[in-house]
Amino acid sequence: MSADPLVVFTPSGKRGHFPVGTPVLTAARQLGVDLDSVCGGRGICSKCQITPSFGEFPKHGVTAHKDALSEWNSVEQRYDDKRGLKEGRRLGCQATVQGDIVIDVPEESQVHKQVIRKAASDRIITMDPATRLYFIEVDEPDMHTPTGDLERVARALQEQWQIDNVRAALPVLSKLQPALRKGKWQITVALNKGHDDTHARILDVWPGLYEGGIYGLAIDLGSTTIAAHLCDLVTGEVKASSGLMNPQIRFGEDLMSRVSYVMMNPGGDVEMTTAVRTAINGLIETIATEAEIDPNAIFETVFVCNPVMHHLLLGIDPVELGQAPFALATSDSMSLDAREMDLHAMNDNARVYILPCIAGHVGADAAAVALSEEPGKSDDLVLIVDVGTNAEILLGDKDRVLACSSPTGPAFEGAQISSGQRAAPGAIERLEINPETKEPRFRVIGSDIWSDEDGFDNATATTGITGICGSGIIEAVAEMRMAGLLDDSGLIGSAEQTGTSRSIPEGRTHSYLIHDATADGGPLITVTQGDIRAIQLAKSALYAGARLLMDERGVDTVDRVVLAGAFGAHISSKHAMVLGMIPDAPLDKVTSAGNAAGTGARIALCNVMARATIEKTVGEITKVETAIEPKFQEHFVNANAIPHKTDPFPELAKIMTLPNVSFNTGGGDSAGGGRRRRRRG
Amino acid sequence: MSADPLVVFTPSGKRGHFPVGTPVLTAARQLGVDLDSVCGGRGICSKCQITPSFGEFPKHGVTAHKDALSEWNSVEQRYDDKRGLKEGRRLGCQATVQGDIVIDVPEESQVHKQVIRKAASDRIITMDPATRLYFIEVDEPDMHTPTGDLERVARALQEQWQIDNVRAALPVLSKLQPALRKGKWQITVALNKGHDDTHARILDVWPGLYEGGIYGLAIDLGSTTIAAHLCDLVTGEVKASSGLMNPQIRFGEDLMSRVSYVMMNPGGDVEMTTAVRTAINGLIETIATEAEIDPNAIFETVFVCNPVMHHLLLGIDPVELGQAPFALATSDSMSLDAREMDLHAMNDNARVYILPCIAGHVGADAAAVALSEEPGKSDDLVLIVDVGTNAEILLGDKDRVLACSSPTGPAFEGAQISSGQRAAPGAIERLEINPETKEPRFRVIGSDIWSDEDGFDNATATTGITGICGSGIIEAVAEMRMAGLLDDSGLIGSAEQTGTSRSIPEGRTHSYLIHDATADGGPLITVTQGDIRAIQLAKSALYAGARLLMDERGVDTVDRVVLAGAFGAHISSKHAMVLGMIPDAPLDKVTSAGNAAGTGARIALCNVMARATIEKTVGEITKVETAIEPKFQEHFVNANAIPHKTDPFPELAKIMTLPNVSFNTGGGDSAGGGRRRRRRG
Repeated sequence: MSADPLVVFTPSGKRGHFPVGTPVLTAARQLGVDLDSVCGGRGICSKCQITPSFGEFPKHGVTAHKDALSEWNSVEQRYDDKRGLKEGRRLGCQATVQGDIVIDVPEESQVHKQVIRKAASDRIITMDPATRLYFIEVDEPDMHTPTGDLERVARALQEQWQIDNVRAALPVLSKLQPALRKGKWQITVALNKGHDDTHARILDVWPGLYEGGIYGLAIDLGSTTIAAHLCDLVTGEVKASSGLMNPQIRFGEDLMSRVSYVMMNPGGDVEMTTAVRTAINGLIETIATEAEIDPNAIFETVFVCNPVMHHLLLGIDPVELGQAPFALATSDSMSLDAREMDLHAMNDNARVYILPCIAGHVGADAAAVALSEEPGKSDDLVLIVDVGTNAEILLGDKDRVLACSSPTGPAFEGAQISSGQRAAPGAIERLEINPETKEPRFRVIGSDIWSDEDGFDNATATTGITGICGSGIIEAVAEMRMAGLLDDSGLIGSAEQTGTSRSIPEGRTHSYLIHDATADGGPLITVTQGDIRAIQLAKSALYAGARLLMDERGVDTVDRVVLAGAFGAHISSKHAMVLGMIPDAPLDKVTSAGNAAGTGARIALCNVMARATIEKTVGEITKVETAIEPKFQEHFVNANAIPHKTDPFPELAKIMTLPNVSFNTGGGDSAGGGRRRRRRG
Repeated sequence: MSADPLVVFTPSGKRGHFPVGTPVLTAARQLGVDLDSVCGGRGICSKCQITPSFGEFPKHGVTAHKDALSEWNSVEQRYDDKRGLKEGRRLGCQATVQGDIVIDVPEESQVHKQVIRKAASDRIITMDPATRLYFIEVDEPDMHTPTGDLERVARALQEQWQIDNVRAALPVLSKLQPALRKGKWQITVALNKGHDDTHARILDVWPGLYEGGIYGLAIDLGSTTIAAHLCDLVTGEVKASSGLMNPQIRFGEDLMSRVSYVMMNPGGDVEMTTAVRTAINGLIETIATEAEIDPNAIFETVFVCNPVMHHLLLGIDPVELGQAPFALATSDSMSLDAREMDLHAMNDNARVYILPCIAGHVGADAAAVALSEEPGKSDDLVLIVDVGTNAEILLGDKDRVLACSSPTGPAFEGAQISSGQRAAPGAIERLEINPETKEPRFRVIGSDIWSDEDGFDNATATTGITGICGSGIIEAVAEMRMAGLLDDSGLIGSAEQTGTSRSIPEGRTHSYLIHDATADGGPLITVTQGDIRAIQLAKSALYAGARLLMDERGVDTVDRVVLAGAFGAHISSKHAMVLGMIPDAPLDKVTSAGNAAGTGARIALCNVMARATIEKTVGEITKVETAIEPKFQEHFVNANAIPHKTDPFPELAKIMTLPNVSFNTGGGDSAGGGRRRRRRG
């Protein structure tokens, strides 16, 4: 046995014998223990804090005496005086091993911290960002063996951090010389190395030890909204989140209308590219202000988006995506300088990573959902639906993952709905209809009080009741079906047929009155027959896409359903199933994953190797093109009924029986947009 | 022995047996014969033309019958009808082997053509440019296995040209889709791969076969002038050369005054960077117009320049180069996108390569001279002097190469000389003084007639006689010394001392009158004592630099001297030696290399591996810093005399004896700027 003291690190359990006098940081490095250090053990960055434990540790076979570490030294004293060292903590680069000892590495001293994402699932992100800070001491220039300052910086990174092949962005070169001299040949560099890079690039440089933060953005660039999360690239913490409407909406509400705009207006792609890049620059400024950080400290942005937004962001005409065979200009991931995309609001040398697209209709956003939800690691068969203007659908398990997209249109986001509106205070988000009285009760965003409860009027006095948002319209339509106001073909019954005066005639069809605020100068909030038709089109598209993947996989049911997307988080699974948006499944197997695409972007931002993972995964996904698949049309037509014309919903039937009503009188509007309606048996 | 026909290629001599029916191009490729093809053997680019030889070839052991190649086919016929195939030529991809045959690959069908540079030395440049054209056939998109167009282009380059790891510049992505469709899935790409790149990048794309040229620029960015050569990247031919004055001159004539300008004027570096980049963009437009090519067909630029210009070109404050230890921000070579340097006059995606700097005072221009003149391959000891506002000096042989620079100032370029001017029509460039009569005769740029010959007045009527250029002033001073008008201390004798009325008093010193055109409203062209002093300072600096390298190498003589630089080409070696600009050597061992720095730039442009070579070479050169070497001052003072105070010039003495005169009368101006003068023994 070795006579050298035994050092045991927790929580890793790594252990080894080291000569008396070995700094704890050195011991940690030799054992491969994850202990952070920016200054390389010079006692100035304080990142290597550890907590020694003294006493008997039978588990580890160690008895640690009080003098098992060297005494508190002047460097630690100075640091403690200046900034305060937590009780029991030591600096790992200063404390040396004197006897057997157990040393705990606290979470914040680990480079590869694990960040639990704040969502329903408990997925963990291991911090391993592409951009990190390194403090180095650089040799002074020597006239007799002349080398450039950059070449000596590269040598220091090699010698002090074992990082080879370092280059500098051109703007860094003009900052390097003053920084080296101001820092007395000690500098901190922000170094970026992507998963597929053969060299590391210096993105920024500061004199001495830089004590500010470094940040990255995860941006989910949707057709309708742009959502950004600002993440601390050291801790993984989300410092701020912000969003805005995609300004391209003025060129067309949905993707295909934007593609049409380009076809009709030469140069329209350039206009839209400029608009979205300008908006993103504005968003970056906003989020930096909100988080109270310098936007120059933002070094990376990860984008996820659908293929059309992908092309418009990159300045590529999306017209090929508007027609078969829906060819992407490029499908692989992209790593580039932010300045190439005119994203100037961040650091001059910031990098951009864009996840790969899966197919011409299935974008980097779907890839991000796959990265976040990992269907390919699932033991049971999971259907993941990311509901937006375009729905991305993934179906799979450990054996195989399939993907497609389906053009749901904007109805689920409250657009094309007569009383529809964005999810904002005043919008109806929850709704119930009493099956006996046919009277509705509802809640609006901004208040927890139902409309039939005391205090509702007060609570909504400032916001008013302004319309119905996406989740509200889904509940409204489902509740109307459950209350017998709507038949399975989607026809709203008349006052006579339904027995409620809330069914009001509108031309040859009927509307259901939810709230009349006209007396107060407010709106008349109704669900019209047209609204029902819009929702039917959207939900049929969604269901047909899912069904197509199930066909491809050879199954009639799925084990569980995950609703993703900001919107997905707010949908009631019961109502979604009554509507037939999703295939039948036990209700407790229908969960929400929140903004899974945004989470995928965050994962790719915080963990550089996740980029390699998703690139590989995307290559293995089976792509299904809904637009050319003849069965899609058949599935779409069958899915028009509520919940469905032919597919049984046995799990739904276990918890409720839908009224068997029919309001078709032979004339007027008929279900399925004129298609002949058949009653389900 | 194989029964297959024997194919012998000339001039390579490569030979092998191939089955009947093998296309000549295929045989060439299998043998590694350098036979060009852009279209990959599809019979459309005509680059693979070969000349079969028929008859008896005892040298090769081959008898080639008339039917040794397949018959002229329809592809060849169509090409011949359309563009004409030279007599005896065949297309290598169409003609197939039918029997034993000798096939010559003409120079223009070789990829690695050898281009003999048009200069004194017969150095050969082997064409191996970083940017080349490739014609490819790309798979059409398939909805069922969706991949991006770029990914299919990359696959085509891999399958058809064995080129891996292809990326595309972002602006190419927006051109790719229309080009593929217009070209019916056949395109030509301009592909760039630097010597240190791990991936190739597509710089441009054209539908079908691109039949235009691709070009590169070799730019010698000097303190005073910017000279550019436009080269065809396929043939190596110089299509046009152009130059202009460096606009930074308005900020300071020499390098140190520009550095001072930055010190005095914050932001002055940015002004100068903008000025030089704007000038280069203008130069590119000019040269493209002159060569009648589209500037978008320029894909690369190689720069050589001194360290201060290097930094100012890159946008780096050069202030550190103005003071010890003369630290470069970066010394290694640079490979970057032209757009990073705002050089927009070329193709959007053009690349820039800048040669490495040798030291803080010895720049990429000196590296280019080393690449062109290859002192490290010399059997004898060669001194290479690149004369400019700053002189770069290289000394070496196979064993070791040393380098330094010396601040000669602009006197050699005609600046700071009373009658000095740029080398332009009307400037005196050659001058002789009759040692008996002390009368001058001279020639001016633009005419071959000497001033004492018939027709001189006529010949110079339009240009006039306007001043003295750099080579003219060197000859004038040397001739004055040879004619006894000037003593070895550099003092001009009076009319009484010299016996000529052309010695005219000017204050307490004298001037020598060369030409009086005042009667015609022209200038009075004289060499003043001040001019002599300026030339003495310049030549002393040059000589002292060379002498310092000789000290370091431990020698008192060199085997040969190469005068480089545009200016060096015009200096008379005899006069340079009389003046003591260069160390004593046999006159036939003093040669001119023309613009060696420009040639080095051309080599690095046309041959990508030469970049690796010079990077390695620069690392091996011994750098000598003149500014801090105490012996430099001593050498400088001793070199002030004409030709020298202490060094003997035995080779010069073999061909002439300089008059042993002395004009110092004890008062007035004394040689060496006030230093005590000693007569040589």
